[in-house]
Amino acid sequence: MIERGDMNGKILFDDGEHKFIWLGSDPDYRKGVVQTMQYLIIDKGKGWLLDPGGVHLFSRVVASASRYISLDRIEGIFFSHQDPDVSSGIALWLGVTNAKIYICGLWLRFLPHFGIVDPSRVTAIEEQGRDFRLGSGAVFQFVPSHYMHSPGAFSLFDVRSRILFSGDIGAAVFPEGSENLFIEDFQKVLPYIEGFHKRIIASNAVAKRWTEIVSKLDPVMIAPQHGGVYRGPAIKSFLSWLSTLRCGVDNLDELFRF
Amino acid sequence: MIERGDMNGKILFDDGEHKFIWLGSDPDYRKGVVQTMQYLIIDKGKGWLLDPGGVHLFSRVVASASRYISLDRIEGIFFSHQDPDVSSGIALWLGVTNAKIYICGLWLRFLPHFGIVDPSRVTAIEEQGRDFRLGSGAVFQFVPSHYMHSPGAFSLFDVRSRILFSGDIGAAVFPEGSENLFIEDFQKVLPYIEGFHKRIIASNAVAKRWTEIVSKLDPVMIAPQHGGVYRGPAIKSFLSWLSTLRCGVDNLDELFRF
Repeated sequence: MIERGDMNGKILFDDGEHKFIWLGSDPDYRKGVVQTMQYLIIDKGKGWLLDPGGVHLFSRVVASASRYISLDRIEGIFFSHQDPDVSSGIALWLGVTNAKIYICGLWLRFLPHFGIVDPSRVTAIEEQGRDFRLGSGAVFQFVPSHYMHSPGAFSLFDVRSRILFSGDIGAAVFPEGSENLFIEDFQKVLPYIEGFHKRIIASNAVAKRWTEIVSKLDPVMIAPQHGGVYRGPAIKSFLSWLSTLRCGVDNLDELFRF
Repeated sequence: MIERGDMNGKILFDDGEHKFIWLGSDPDYRKGVVQTMQYLIIDKGKGWLLDPGGVHLFSRVVASASRYISLDRIEGIFFSHQDPDVSSGIALWLGVTNAKIYICGLWLRFLPHFGIVDPSRVTAIEEQGRDFRLGSGAVFQFVPSHYMHSPGAFSLFDVRSRILFSGDIGAAVFPEGSENLFIEDFQKVLPYIEGFHKRIIASNAVAKRWTEIVSKLDPVMIAPQHGGVYRGPAIKSFLSWLSTLRCGVDNLDELFRF
């Protein structure tokens, strides 16, 4: 269970100047709807939102983020990929902040389908280069995550906190009532992780490549968009499991038998 | 150029009882936004919409469909996959029709992120089985299209008209002003097709498998969600080209160099 005091959010890292915050859980969690996790990075008073989520979460995430920062100080919004649960609130977020949106260039021409979007406020991650230096000097690294599942996806490694925001990668779908903020015993949660990853990642070739990049970054936490935050020994166990997973087109016969 | 008389739609097949209709083009086509194509199947007075599109197209598609059928006679809406340009208008469509939504089961728990959606009106295609028999007796075949690009995608083969609605597969991104409704000379449009397919389809293994299934169906037209409708010799040329395309994770080194 997620502790009652954590429902409105929890600071995962704080060194006085730089914070990495999980923005809390939906108290009206509805059966049959994938639960999403939103994060806020604050660096020297300026904020970045990571996958702030779809339209129906908007008011909750606004309220939660506002407990930590004034919305007019949010300067960036990162979308790991184009899915509705990630980005369908885009027009609302552009309305209440002055933030720029960062997303894989493949999706630039699709975002307007969520509503009117000013293209000058959307930037292709590829045009930024791998390292993104914030005004304050802190650095994000964009990690290619294409085909896991989206053909155009990135993870975001926050160098100062050494927390990796991994988008859909690492997502767990917990049975109702057994959500946990942290994943420490990987084997225990594997049943809630396995099916999703086998189905949505395009092949082992790409899963293996991603785990090699991430292992070198050596994150202290992996924070996905669904499920729980990996820390401690669960990180290595997860990466090691993922690097050998047969998934996606590796199981083509099974999926195309329909 | 799309002929002026066709801007509001064109009937691609009509045998008196059964119609397959392209719902026309957006006269306010905006630069930098992927143009989408919507289709309507009418069988003995009952309608099905195929990928009716995102929120900002809603009023145009309502107007266009209404020229052919009363909205309360639309009984099904097919979503090829979960992308915003396909499905972000879902809540609006559920409001103006009594239709049921059909989409790959993988996305059922994600759709509510577009707004409030009544789950009893959404059906997983896998639960329908491969052949879907309409009240009137006509049959649709759902063709697995997973990882092309979405991990959970289907094409829809309308057996009576022998038109295949292929979702993103076959999509062309025409330069502004050179859109054509029909693709008859495949080599001529290849430059507007190649880049998109190399990037969004997960691997040749899956592209090849899909072309094998589709070749057996032997469609008289392939109608994608973007670009133009393939007919005549362009169909075989397209399938033959796609069956050998190196794409997605086949080009991993290139994409993960970032």
